[in-house]
Amino acid sequence: MPITNEQAEANVRRYLELVATGTAAEIVALYAPDGVLEDPVGSEPLVGREAIQGFYATLEPMKVTTELLAIRASGGEAAFHFHIETDTGAGVAVLDPMEMMAFDEDGLIRSMRAWWNDGDMTFG
Amino acid sequence: MPITNEQAEANVRRYLELVATGTAAEIVALYAPDGVLEDPVGSEPLVGREAIQGFYATLEPMKVTTELLAIRASGGEAAFHFHIETDTGAGVAVLDPMEMMAFDEDGLIRSMRAWWNDGDMTFG
Repeated sequence: MPITNEQAEANVRRYLELVATGTAAEIVALYAPDGVLEDPVGSEPLVGREAIQGFYATLEPMKVTTELLAIRASGGEAAFHFHIETDTGAGVAVLDPMEMMAFDEDGLIRSMRAWWNDGDMTFG
Repeated sequence: MPITNEQAEANVRRYLELVATGTAAEIVALYAPDGVLEDPVGSEPLVGREAIQGFYATLEPMKVTTELLAIRASGGEAAFHFHIETDTGAGVAVLDPMEMMAFDEDGLIRSMRAWWNDGDMTFG
């Protein structure tokens, strides 16, 4: 049984909260052990929690805020549009990516894909 | 070589224009011969132009308007959020789905997936 649309949306909200306030270990615990992350789409996918934790570890020392702009859930998956500001120390990177997440029956992320390109990013 | 982000965005705009004003045959010509459509995500995917044309044929007699709300392109794909109003004759169905399209090297749609559920639809 796929998770419900309500569960998928709650999982996305928890994910965005942890991207802003959590540790890389807390974020990666949302992924299935063999989860796959492709961010941005077209880059080499990262497979498994160890590789995925390395991705989020780069955000850990930075001040990050996130805001969910829109979400649509269907069939154990969610697509969403969100706003993220990352204070790199040298400036604030601002991006509104679109992502999709597919969840396993336990609600863990088995696939995350993010569509954005360099032209979408601004520095404030 | 994947198509450029500009081409992906232009293809999505052309698609939404044809969903509003074109025939099912015109829309299906945007798909690769072995293209796959999954709308909504979780439903049985339709494979190939004949099956896909049947999907769009149901829209053909209805008055449809579309508006692109947001789009992000990356790696030969695009994700987008759009508004669609469909006058069924018995009322106007209003929906803001999120979709992704992956394009082949010729710019034809090899995969379209749409995230939305019944709770997202309103009737005006």
